[in-house]
Amino acid sequence: MEAFSDGVMAVASTLLVLDLAIPATQHTDLLARLIGEWPGYLGFLVSFATIGVIWLGHSAITDYLERVDATLLRLNLLLLFFVCLLPFATGLLAEFIDQEGAERVASTVYGLLLLLCSVLLSVLWRYAVRAKLLHPDLDDDEVTLLTRRVTPGIGGYVLMIILGLFFPGAAVIGYLVIAVFLLLPFSLRRRPPEEHDKRRSPRRRSRPSEH
Amino acid sequence: MEAFSDGVMAVASTLLVLDLAIPATQHTDLLARLIGEWPGYLGFLVSFATIGVIWLGHSAITDYLERVDATLLRLNLLLLFFVCLLPFATGLLAEFIDQEGAERVASTVYGLLLLLCSVLLSVLWRYAVRAKLLHPDLDDDEVTLLTRRVTPGIGGYVLMIILGLFFPGAAVIGYLVIAVFLLLPFSLRRRPPEEHDKRRSPRRRSRPSEH
Amino acid sequence: MEAFSDGVMAVASTLLVLDLAIPATQHTDLLARLIGEWPGYLGFLVSFATIGVIWLGHSAITDYLERVDATLLRLNLLLLFFVCLLPFATGLLAEFIDQEGAERVASTVYGLLLLLCSVLLSVLWRYAVRAKLLHPDLDDDEVTLLTRRVTPGIGGYVLMIILGLFFPGAAVIGYLVIAVFLLLPFSLRRRPPEEHDKRRSPRRRSRPSEH
Amino acid sequence: MEAFSDGVMAVASTLLVLDLAIPATQHTDLLARLIGEWPGYLGFLVSFATIGVIWLGHSAITDYLERVDATLLRLNLLLLFFVCLLPFATGLLAEFIDQEGAERVASTVYGLLLLLCSVLLSVLWRYAVRAKLLHPDLDDDEVTLLTRRVTPGIGGYVLMIILGLFFPGAAVIGYLVIAVFLLLPFSLRRRPPEEHDKRRSPRRRSRPSEH
Repeated sequence: MEAFSDGVMAVASTLLVLDLAIPATQHTDLLARLIGEWPGYLGFLVSFATIGVIWLGHSAITDYLERVDATLLRLNLLLLFFVCLLPFATGLLAEFIDQEGAERVASTVYGLLLLLCSVLLSVLWRYAVRAKLLHPDLDDDEVTLLTRRVTPGIGGYVLMIILGLFFPGAAVIGYLVIAVFLLLPFSLRRRPPEEHDKRRSPRRRSRPSEH
Repeated sequence: MEAFSDGVMAVASTLLVLDLAIPATQHTDLLARLIGEWPGYLGFLVSFATIGVIWLGHSAITDYLERVDATLLRLNLLLLFFVCLLPFATGLLAEFIDQEGAERVASTVYGLLLLLCSVLLSVLWRYAVRAKLLHPDLDDDEVTLLTRRVTPGIGGYVLMIILGLFFPGAAVIGYLVIAVFLLLPFSLRRRPPEEHDKRRSPRRRSRPSEH
Repeated sequence: MEAFSDGVMAVASTLLVLDLAIPATQHTDLLARLIGEWPGYLGFLVSFATIGVIWLGHSAITDYLERVDATLLRLNLLLLFFVCLLPFATGLLAEFIDQEGAERVASTVYGLLLLLCSVLLSVLWRYAVRAKLLHPDLDDDEVTLLTRRVTPGIGGYVLMIILGLFFPGAAVIGYLVIAVFLLLPFSLRRRPPEEHDKRRSPRRRSRPSEH
Repeated sequence: MEAFSDGVMAVASTLLVLDLAIPATQHTDLLARLIGEWPGYLGFLVSFATIGVIWLGHSAITDYLERVDATLLRLNLLLLFFVCLLPFATGLLAEFIDQEGAERVASTVYGLLLLLCSVLLSVLWRYAVRAKLLHPDLDDDEVTLLTRRVTPGIGGYVLMIILGLFFPGAAVIGYLVIAVFLLLPFSLRRRPPEEHDKRRSPRRRSRPSEH
């Protein structure tokens, strides 16, 4: 499951680059043209950061899993389905961000997709906890910690989607803020890094065979 | 074999997104335009679900293998060859689904490709069973179970290809139904999930080194 | 080294599909149009089969390696460099195969690339043998066998490139014949399959940790 | 971390091929046209070689790591972010290399990206050293050796970016020289290959589980 998921996320994040348009050859003031393409770069940045957040959460989950079951594999496929759509939604956003009306549609589609990815990641984790697929020696604190971690993005995305109906541009900035916030090393928000690393690292590399 | 196969399937499923056309900039009613592109989304959904089914079957097979031989590696390459063609056939379908005549050709080409993927996956499994490449401690029940699982899609695809000669649109819906049906957690169709998980999960993670 | 190489080859083989042009929408006789695109499918087939051959040879080599050194890693990068160019050369071939003059250039560029891939794979293996990077318990027979296997393509490609200067179309068929010949299960050409499988399979899955 | 990083780098290096334009069909003097496209090939070569250098450094670092922490994972994502942008910057370079003015912008953007990748790789390594994430039995010599290795490129890129403001073409050649220099087997520049291989290879394959 991990190899396929990592592959899909690696490809999806790299395909984002295809949405960055290379300006037509005849224009000589390339710098001005590139600066004019800022929505494309912003979209690339937000989408890459979001896939980064999903990947971090996903690899934390797979590290904690002892086994998988049929349902978990399907939930995982559904998450990857939405991740695969991100390059398309990013392209839509970059294309229409400066056009009234269309901008609102693009930003809403994009936000809904980010929300769905975020919800699916959370569902994946909660299912794994409930179906008892985790390593038996994980203590409840660690489970609670990761539960808290995969949750806050959801509320943020809902807020931003609503905001985006009125101010689409602000919503895109909001999506970036959410991703950057979730990317901040976990330890900065929860506990001193020393303790966090000591706690998590041995588990992180632990493989079922070691238990 | 697994890394390469997972890679090809991950890339193929992500490349599908390139078939989703971003509407031209001048149109302002983006929502209507996006809704008008529904064949593209339908194709993306069917192809992604089908690759998901193939991946699930493929990773079940590789889990059960104890060793590979030269023929199995070639059969696997042939399966991947058809998987690689899926983004092309999906693009064809999305482009022509609303055009009489062309629609029938596109839907038949697409169905034949799904059929070939399905047949190859089944051949791969049957060859592995016959050439005694499986773990020696697999019981016959488990072998029979997986054999039954990789088979039913084939009949469905043949039916849908024939149906598609007369009603191409209905066939595409049929391909989606087959994929969704095959994606439903196995346990729902065979046995209570409790028992199924207990049975399959320990095997699923079992690696040759543990035997 | 293996994960990165497998990744590059998986992506390269899947990117080939982007060379398959989807006919423009206005043509209704889609079947005739698709048949008219046969050079594209032929190119896809030859390139996919060739990457398949390279992947089979490459994974046989990495299975036999006990360790890597700095030079081997660089030779491997060079091989991947040429593999990455294959989708481009394939596109060139598909585009120009029916145009006199251009056809000869495209077929020669394509053949030279196949030759370079083939030579690099052979150099990689020979270097690994000479630098004593293989498992110490490999017997000479097995080494000779693989040496013989990664060699014959080279002569074939040289012949076909020369032939292609006069009959470019025939050369492309020749490239396909070479790839298919190299893809035929090894055992068919060397020894009875029974014996071959018994001989190779235990080694194939052997990992340094098992030695 | 390794699978995802390898995946991103494999895809990024393969996507470079999409920047190689296939000449329009109507031109019959294909050879002349292909030769006229040399900036594209040069860009492909430089970018592929640079990703190769980054990959070599990255896989040396991950080999030396005993564990990862939250900060290292984020630094790694940042490195991959810049790697993902390489196909875009390469396309820019290929498109504008023969146009005064635009050429300078493209070459500077490209150089800055190479510099950022190089700096990030160095930061990743230095962070790993300082945060004591390496295998405890690594001796200081080995650490110093790799530190020296991931550093020199940085100065070279700064020089070339400045040079590129006046002679953009020369800078591109400079980027190639840096990449080729960094690709030269390490041993040629540091110590006799014999000794180097003996020293590094056993470590290179060492896995945490073996310690």
